[in-house]
Amino acid sequence: MTTLMKSALYTAALSSAGFAMDAASAQSEPTVQAQQVRPQGSQPGMQGPQQLFTGTAQIAPLFPGTAEINASGAYVTFEAGARTAWHTHPKGQHIIVTQGVGYTQQWGQPVTQIKVGDVVWCPPGVKHWHGAAADSAMTHLVVTGQDEEGRNVVWLEKVSDAEYSGARDINNEQ
Amino acid sequence: MTTLMKSALYTAALSSAGFAMDAASAQSEPTVQAQQVRPQGSQPGMQGPQQLFTGTAQIAPLFPGTAEINASGAYVTFEAGARTAWHTHPKGQHIIVTQGVGYTQQWGQPVTQIKVGDVVWCPPGVKHWHGAAADSAMTHLVVTGQDEEGRNVVWLEKVSDAEYSGARDINNEQ
Repeated sequence: MTTLMKSALYTAALSSAGFAMDAASAQSEPTVQAQQVRPQGSQPGMQGPQQLFTGTAQIAPLFPGTAEINASGAYVTFEAGARTAWHTHPKGQHIIVTQGVGYTQQWGQPVTQIKVGDVVWCPPGVKHWHGAAADSAMTHLVVTGQDEEGRNVVWLEKVSDAEYSGARDINNEQ
Repeated sequence: MTTLMKSALYTAALSSAGFAMDAASAQSEPTVQAQQVRPQGSQPGMQGPQQLFTGTAQIAPLFPGTAEINASGAYVTFEAGARTAWHTHPKGQHIIVTQGVGYTQQWGQPVTQIKVGDVVWCPPGVKHWHGAAADSAMTHLVVTGQDEEGRNVVWLEKVSDAEYSGARDINNEQ
């Protein structure tokens, strides 16, 4: 596979997961007028890049944003202790936890434990992070809104071990 | 629970599943500016109504369409043999199969088997149905676009046993 191909897959996977790093990578795609089945395993995934994630996170894209639906979809699996950096979404993000136990935190608020079946809404512009519990992996399906220019995330600083230890404290109290 | 309350829950669940029956039931909801967690089991589900489904289908709403993201989300679980009626979506629908084996069919095309991990895109205005295999339950997560008036589905005739038997034939060939 060429470097160019790898780069294109990389940005497509990041964009579907609501992690596009620039506007050009998240433009809406035209859609076809016939029902389209994407078989399991047919859409290349990627590991969350080190500058945006702490620990190991695997991104599996599901569908891109389109002219009809202004949001993309992806599964993201975090190994125990792994998490995103702090970030905001210009059009918000829905999170559906599909496996395991994790945490999410809004800036200035306590850490919240999330588990299978829980649904989280992150409103536009709200600074937050999400990831796995310290002792459990966590998978969530994300549906991430994108603005008219295709932007779906603004990345901020990484979540420090000290910040994440607040999550561990919460866990120990439960 | 009063009849009025039941009716409100009924239309909310149908709307989240992309099955709203009229425009008024699928209006966008305002969103809050704090992260919001909906715990598993906190959003009432419903059984798919007999005039729109054949067999038993259970709808579990996940999130409504909003001003920021023009699509709603829901899990729909079909018992073996259960399926939707024929229908179209004005803004399309993404289907992610999360459990079991099922079928989908576009009008005039062969039945297609779908299974865990497969992702289906149903473009706007394309007449289709989806449901479980004859010998397996199937659960999918749907993300359904809605138009400016909040409409997300146009219902048509039910899928006859003869039409569904085309699906069984496909299954037996595999």
